[in-house]
Amino acid sequence: MTVPAQHPEFAQIAARVNNWGRWGAEDEIGTLNLVTDAVVREAAATVTTGRRVPLALPLQQDGVQTGMIPGRVNPLHTMVALNLEMFGPGTVATNDDAVTMGLQAATHWDGLAHVSHGGRLYNGRPAATVTAHGGAAFSGIDKSRTVVSRGVLLDVARARGEERLAGDHAVSPEDLDAAEEFAGTRVRAGDIVLVRTGQLRRYLAGDKSGYAYPSPGLSLRTPAWFHARDVAAVANDTLTFEIVPPEVENLWLPVHALHLVEMGMLQGQNWNLEELSTACAHEGRYAFLLTAQPEPFTGGTGAPVAPVAVL
Amino acid sequence: MTVPAQHPEFAQIAARVNNWGRWGAEDEIGTLNLVTDAVVREAAATVTTGRRVPLALPLQQDGVQTGMIPGRVNPLHTMVALNLEMFGPGTVATNDDAVTMGLQAATHWDGLAHVSHGGRLYNGRPAATVTAHGGAAFSGIDKSRTVVSRGVLLDVARARGEERLAGDHAVSPEDLDAAEEFAGTRVRAGDIVLVRTGQLRRYLAGDKSGYAYPSPGLSLRTPAWFHARDVAAVANDTLTFEIVPPEVENLWLPVHALHLVEMGMLQGQNWNLEELSTACAHEGRYAFLLTAQPEPFTGGTGAPVAPVAVL
Amino acid sequence: MTVPAQHPEFAQIAARVNNWGRWGAEDEIGTLNLVTDAVVREAAATVTTGRRVPLALPLQQDGVQTGMIPGRVNPLHTMVALNLEMFGPGTVATNDDAVTMGLQAATHWDGLAHVSHGGRLYNGRPAATVTAHGGAAFSGIDKSRTVVSRGVLLDVARARGEERLAGDHAVSPEDLDAAEEFAGTRVRAGDIVLVRTGQLRRYLAGDKSGYAYPSPGLSLRTPAWFHARDVAAVANDTLTFEIVPPEVENLWLPVHALHLVEMGMLQGQNWNLEELSTACAHEGRYAFLLTAQPEPFTGGTGAPVAPVAVL
Amino acid sequence: MTVPAQHPEFAQIAARVNNWGRWGAEDEIGTLNLVTDAVVREAAATVTTGRRVPLALPLQQDGVQTGMIPGRVNPLHTMVALNLEMFGPGTVATNDDAVTMGLQAATHWDGLAHVSHGGRLYNGRPAATVTAHGGAAFSGIDKSRTVVSRGVLLDVARARGEERLAGDHAVSPEDLDAAEEFAGTRVRAGDIVLVRTGQLRRYLAGDKSGYAYPSPGLSLRTPAWFHARDVAAVANDTLTFEIVPPEVENLWLPVHALHLVEMGMLQGQNWNLEELSTACAHEGRYAFLLTAQPEPFTGGTGAPVAPVAVL
Repeated sequence: MTVPAQHPEFAQIAARVNNWGRWGAEDEIGTLNLVTDAVVREAAATVTTGRRVPLALPLQQDGVQTGMIPGRVNPLHTMVALNLEMFGPGTVATNDDAVTMGLQAATHWDGLAHVSHGGRLYNGRPAATVTAHGGAAFSGIDKSRTVVSRGVLLDVARARGEERLAGDHAVSPEDLDAAEEFAGTRVRAGDIVLVRTGQLRRYLAGDKSGYAYPSPGLSLRTPAWFHARDVAAVANDTLTFEIVPPEVENLWLPVHALHLVEMGMLQGQNWNLEELSTACAHEGRYAFLLTAQPEPFTGGTGAPVAPVAVL
Repeated sequence: MTVPAQHPEFAQIAARVNNWGRWGAEDEIGTLNLVTDAVVREAAATVTTGRRVPLALPLQQDGVQTGMIPGRVNPLHTMVALNLEMFGPGTVATNDDAVTMGLQAATHWDGLAHVSHGGRLYNGRPAATVTAHGGAAFSGIDKSRTVVSRGVLLDVARARGEERLAGDHAVSPEDLDAAEEFAGTRVRAGDIVLVRTGQLRRYLAGDKSGYAYPSPGLSLRTPAWFHARDVAAVANDTLTFEIVPPEVENLWLPVHALHLVEMGMLQGQNWNLEELSTACAHEGRYAFLLTAQPEPFTGGTGAPVAPVAVL
Repeated sequence: MTVPAQHPEFAQIAARVNNWGRWGAEDEIGTLNLVTDAVVREAAATVTTGRRVPLALPLQQDGVQTGMIPGRVNPLHTMVALNLEMFGPGTVATNDDAVTMGLQAATHWDGLAHVSHGGRLYNGRPAATVTAHGGAAFSGIDKSRTVVSRGVLLDVARARGEERLAGDHAVSPEDLDAAEEFAGTRVRAGDIVLVRTGQLRRYLAGDKSGYAYPSPGLSLRTPAWFHARDVAAVANDTLTFEIVPPEVENLWLPVHALHLVEMGMLQGQNWNLEELSTACAHEGRYAFLLTAQPEPFTGGTGAPVAPVAVL
Repeated sequence: MTVPAQHPEFAQIAARVNNWGRWGAEDEIGTLNLVTDAVVREAAATVTTGRRVPLALPLQQDGVQTGMIPGRVNPLHTMVALNLEMFGPGTVATNDDAVTMGLQAATHWDGLAHVSHGGRLYNGRPAATVTAHGGAAFSGIDKSRTVVSRGVLLDVARARGEERLAGDHAVSPEDLDAAEEFAGTRVRAGDIVLVRTGQLRRYLAGDKSGYAYPSPGLSLRTPAWFHARDVAAVANDTLTFEIVPPEVENLWLPVHALHLVEMGMLQGQNWNLEELSTACAHEGRYAFLLTAQPEPFTGGTGAPVAPVAVL
């Protein structure tokens, strides 16, 4: 296997995109710092029709996980009270439920502490600061206090006239350029970019294992694109986010390492961009207000999110 | 104990606020229908400074639940992978977490199927349509596809010049009127109203049992107020939402029955309105864009939510 | 579909094996009453070599469940503390784990409240006495205070000279007779009978779906055999216990209804009888001391068990 | 805080009781090796009356945990199917449950990998071999294939004529000698010793926090006693097993370190010895057959157990 830092291309990109210290040695949220009040004001100003599009998959036992990632279990919904007339017959009866799930099992954000490489997390903190009893001592998902910004859909599949990208398609900077041109909106600092591959259509059609692997996804070369634009976060409609199997043999999860560790940028997976794709095509615009606040699990290395695009 | 429908005042209010059939026999979302595209456009237009305020409590084992509500357990955060270098030493290492929690344990929305009375849920559906294997067959929390609207903070505590309301203070329609006047904003159709009692300060100060019970909360007389204004949803900063112990002896959870069953209106609990209170007072305005999409658990009778106010 | 009580053969057998009232109207443990002190003394006296054979499958995410039975999830093992040196470097470090699992997911006993038919549980109690907030009000698995008795292995597969029974083989009373003769031990009152089909070999060989369905299992005609012998409990090495698909078209789970509801007899599934089969064949005897105490979940309708045979 | 190995008395005892290598470098079960077939035969021979006494607490939300040990949650029992007539009205209806719990939350065995000190587990293995994704790679609780032996109750409280020991009573070797004499049975190789302090009476009386802390428990000096007798395992009726706060200031969990790491001996907590105490006193004997097989969680650092004494 290949150690990322020992791979020349990875090392070169890492050096270019690294944000350690950019927002101070104490920073725990990385590129979310780019979402300024001004960015949010402009985001709100994009709202034109008032149409809202949900981007989360339903949380259920029949979810996207197949067991390929051990321990990342689909949501188990259970009842702890059912038609419980605790005050007597005919009085108010209550229903109450509980859930067990992997925090990264469904539509989610990877928190900055989701991965490390070379023993380091974002901003140079030791990998060992993530523990079983406390989760992430630094950059836990709860530190992302608000995730609301302008969203831009880069609909790579639609821009290429494809229903979904092929399983071995690594989304390249050139793909992003083309999708941006197709969108007619220039990505700018503080934006949250949604990259549509169409891969989720496999899951929606019932093919869970085909959805999981192999899968199109972001290329090792895209982090530099996002860094150049000072994007705040990126999400897409795949299970692994980046292309799997990887472009460089034995170099696994390089995009994770670049985004989360080097840049300090949230990345989202299993987002359902199908309805949004149709809506944007229909309205002829690809920028909108995006609300995507993760559930603030203390020390979480990721969290479910129920994003909504407001057009 | 008192059966709600047999209590004259309850019965009279129920008759007045009932929304069954208003949006058709098939409707599953009730007053969320009042959030039209036009409402959302106006909500976006309230964004002035771009300041964002998170309203969720952190999700952690040391949460607001005390065991008073059996089965509604605080979030248990666990690790299923920790610094796992699955590709060899120095390669990308992953952290992965899982959680078990009551869906209504922390900052949450009560879904319309959270309670029934007289054997009926919202829109007249049988209480028995909520099951252990499927949750709510109708009006599950996943049916609330998007919850984004104009939010209005009715800061009852601040309007009264109190740090927090007394434990036996039933928030009345008159309190709402006064807070509305204090806010300088008239509540209108489709708004989501946030009622601040200050009670959460007890929890924030470490007094969990004092936070839980007894507690100020909404009076039996407020649902008619919300109905008259055609509010889309209401949330506050208490554990039980309505005053406990109840105003009418032995008449338990009447506000739940009116809001959820009769009106079909989401209600939120354990929202942290402290920072928002300060921000609104500082900016001198109490209306904003509110994003509060619940996690879409299939058949959930409630769900955690991480709301954000955008000012 | 066929209502059991309306099927003549089922109705006839039910009438014959019914134990309601046999141990009083208050009884909650059924045939466990047959395990007297004398039976246990005799069971202990069977211990000859002192060899112990475990009969439980390991509890792990990669367990026997395939998703075929919704909500019955394989054990998810997680860590809540890992090498936690809470008292300083070099001091005692602790590891602590948590689990989520279906109570009937692995090697388990079905409790008497696991099924009802015609609205009735064992001893005539209403099905509605099982609730989400309390589990089984009567005959919860915790009521089986001790499950220790003489065990007898009826090795149907070995007696027939087969590695495992065919997928459509309904284990018949004649099969039990033959296996008993092969064992050289007569089954008597208070015994716990272990019926080996060899079907678990499919799971052990990695074929989970083949293990689950279709599967050999007990015939509708065997409960009368167990009743005639006054057996205390029965377990086997299959997922569903009885043959699936069922012998009588559309008559599902008749053996469950007869054992659990009519007789009040625990039945066990997913027991690993492979090592025991070899040991018994080697020692030339098929009776032993069996300890098989379920975990006493209050109100549980079933529970994991880690049985041990002592030869 | 005090590092155990740097404390003279601890270091001296550790050197004396250390069992590393005694059963080979590959051994993962430690003193369970002492339970030979001959020991089990003799254990079975102790069965005189056939009376069975359960020693597990019920598994329920209202269990012994108070939150003092983070993440070690009381069992949450939930339903995933309730009166589910999946084959039509009147057909067999099923109930199915799920649970989330700390493996060491109730009556349990600490596995050998539950603690380490100085970076080492039993038999010298690195502490880092316990991981979040796999649990204990060595000496997981699943490696204890069978736990059945002769049990001996050392009823320290009864021998001293006390209902329960005082909160600051460190059970000493002299206490064990006296209780052994009181029992009239000499503890010998392979026995499982149950030490009764009576402390559980606090929990049974509703005083959870008084049960938890402070608590009588085993003294630092007792491991040498157990080692001298070649005991296979020890359990008692307290939350922490050893006396808390500790005898030597700042020397925390020394008995855990000696038993689990140095000796490789299972230790059990929260065992209910009340009924057994009465039964033994009534029968005038304190030795019996003990079955105490933990649930075999793969890689578990502990596990629930439902022990039964057969007299």
